[in-house]
Amino acid sequence: MSKKHNFGAGPCILPQEVFEEASKAVLDFNGLSILEISHRSEDFVQIMEEAQQLVKDALNVPEGYSVLFLQGGASLGFLISAMNLSGSNKKAAYVNTGAWAKKAIKEGKNADLEVDVIASSEDKNYNYIPKGYSIDESYDFVHFTSNNTIYGTQIKEFPQTSVPKVCDMSSDIFSREINVADFDIIYAGAQKNLGPAGTALFIVKDSILGNSSHSNIPTYLNLKTHQEKGSMFNTPPVFAVYCSMLNLRHLMANGGVAGAAERNKAKAELLYNEIDSNPLFEGTCAVEDRSEMNVTFVLKDDSLNDEFNALWNEAGIVGLKGHRSVGGFRASMYNALKIDSVQHLVNLMKEFATKHAGTPA
Amino acid sequence: MSKKHNFGAGPCILPQEVFEEASKAVLDFNGLSILEISHRSEDFVQIMEEAQQLVKDALNVPEGYSVLFLQGGASLGFLISAMNLSGSNKKAAYVNTGAWAKKAIKEGKNADLEVDVIASSEDKNYNYIPKGYSIDESYDFVHFTSNNTIYGTQIKEFPQTSVPKVCDMSSDIFSREINVADFDIIYAGAQKNLGPAGTALFIVKDSILGNSSHSNIPTYLNLKTHQEKGSMFNTPPVFAVYCSMLNLRHLMANGGVAGAAERNKAKAELLYNEIDSNPLFEGTCAVEDRSEMNVTFVLKDDSLNDEFNALWNEAGIVGLKGHRSVGGFRASMYNALKIDSVQHLVNLMKEFATKHAGTPA
Repeated sequence: MSKKHNFGAGPCILPQEVFEEASKAVLDFNGLSILEISHRSEDFVQIMEEAQQLVKDALNVPEGYSVLFLQGGASLGFLISAMNLSGSNKKAAYVNTGAWAKKAIKEGKNADLEVDVIASSEDKNYNYIPKGYSIDESYDFVHFTSNNTIYGTQIKEFPQTSVPKVCDMSSDIFSREINVADFDIIYAGAQKNLGPAGTALFIVKDSILGNSSHSNIPTYLNLKTHQEKGSMFNTPPVFAVYCSMLNLRHLMANGGVAGAAERNKAKAELLYNEIDSNPLFEGTCAVEDRSEMNVTFVLKDDSLNDEFNALWNEAGIVGLKGHRSVGGFRASMYNALKIDSVQHLVNLMKEFATKHAGTPA
Repeated sequence: MSKKHNFGAGPCILPQEVFEEASKAVLDFNGLSILEISHRSEDFVQIMEEAQQLVKDALNVPEGYSVLFLQGGASLGFLISAMNLSGSNKKAAYVNTGAWAKKAIKEGKNADLEVDVIASSEDKNYNYIPKGYSIDESYDFVHFTSNNTIYGTQIKEFPQTSVPKVCDMSSDIFSREINVADFDIIYAGAQKNLGPAGTALFIVKDSILGNSSHSNIPTYLNLKTHQEKGSMFNTPPVFAVYCSMLNLRHLMANGGVAGAAERNKAKAELLYNEIDSNPLFEGTCAVEDRSEMNVTFVLKDDSLNDEFNALWNEAGIVGLKGHRSVGGFRASMYNALKIDSVQHLVNLMKEFATKHAGTPA
């Protein structure tokens, strides 16, 4: 099978080894299909526990934090994080770095909070990360989106503050080292660097559980519910958790998050260097805020778009079309994407430039 | 591979053909793994649309209803159904037929409704279905649990009323013919007769959407959000929807719901006849309310439990242990369980009775 080069933004590429082991388990996992085992079975309890432990190992999660695999994606996470961190002032700060941050802001309000957008890059179509803003101590929490999949920006350094931090890390968790202790809640839809679509990871500081000022948190939305039941309050998404566990095993066997970070840096450098040196292309974001996960770029002459689209399509690349709100191209380069695929894309860009040498830029 | 006889309550058995096709798709689905395709790809849009259409075909869903595949299971469905059906009186009626009904009642309250339990079988450990109660017209809706997995009871006929009906059909949807037009919302966790754990089906009357009196429905919990986006508001659980589609194809190719109902009736008759004629065993539920999905029974002499447990364990049966709140045994016989497996269990029960002939009952 000649595999395609999957630059899709998500659901996205996972390691081939994960696909192979998951495929086998669908047919036979200790005599049953993984799809028909009880979540209360010894087999699945072990899977859930190993997946939780691997998250702790991969991110050096300190004592006093719990790891949960829930459902509803980051879209429900927006609400869950706001409801659970609702404090005595019922007031939250949000940093607006793109479409997903805006959705988080909306759910902050739906969690009955007064919401202030304390910084925003909406003025320039989110092509940079706001910096230098202050965070008033009266906020119950401050919310970040670490990586902005659509726009190709990434927070390199989180501001220092005594206000509890919560971060949606859907599109860059496990891609670089983070200090979990800096956050009260980290959450992430699985379908980038963790596993297939269908589960959302929460890493939550135990001491915040049960302290929400929200008048009436529904049972499923209360992280305390899930923490008390070891992430087994109701039937978890068994297969998505299983694949996440396989993927985390693969990560740990390949240098852990530090190893992935090194590989991601090399991939990003390779592609950004080409974008910056190729006469036909240019990046769309402030250089210091460029994401290592989602590389957004355009052709300076957009009349060449169709021709370039045809070129990469024919060359076995999928998922390179930019989001409609940015246009151009987006190369999502999650952990499982090999540098060979990036080199393949870079070669095509060079070939395209050679062909159009002399085309006015 | 000598397959086990899977009588598990859920996640549970699905057809072998589904496992085989799903296993292949994890390795290769049009050149990518099904686990790495974008939910916005043409391939997945087709899967989602086919899955929705198959639900409509299987249940003869009338015009004016939408089919949605969400996340969070029935546990989130309790809340979603209550919030979306909250009406001008902010008052709802619930029929309490077991542990899951009780959880639904709790979330009705969390949806800021006044909740009346208008009928209950809690007095007899839920071993029957309450009947003959009246439903006041002032209620915004009345909530039912069609099949009670733990206790082995099933509503055979829903009461006539002008009050909008909502039903959690997690454990018997697609097992028998229903009249969808009788309900404003039907919801069901997938992991019995629909697919693997990880998605929840909603069938919702379009005319109720957007009419909730709830002051502040969060975006994910508003069915209108999902209906407007064709169940693609956020990343759906791609693989769970895909497997559900495969399973529904298999259902339709095997006589549809009518065919499944006939097979389920035969399986239930076979096992209940054995329970009623075997001197060692007895059923735990009122005969007229017995579930065709989950058959609960006990040994009259429970000192024989260990020996019978050893017998079925050694005979390749899994999942027959009764829920702790009922004890004894529970044979879950979802659509995919073959009558041969039921015959195998019946043979063991006969063998056990022969061995203990003369044991005082």
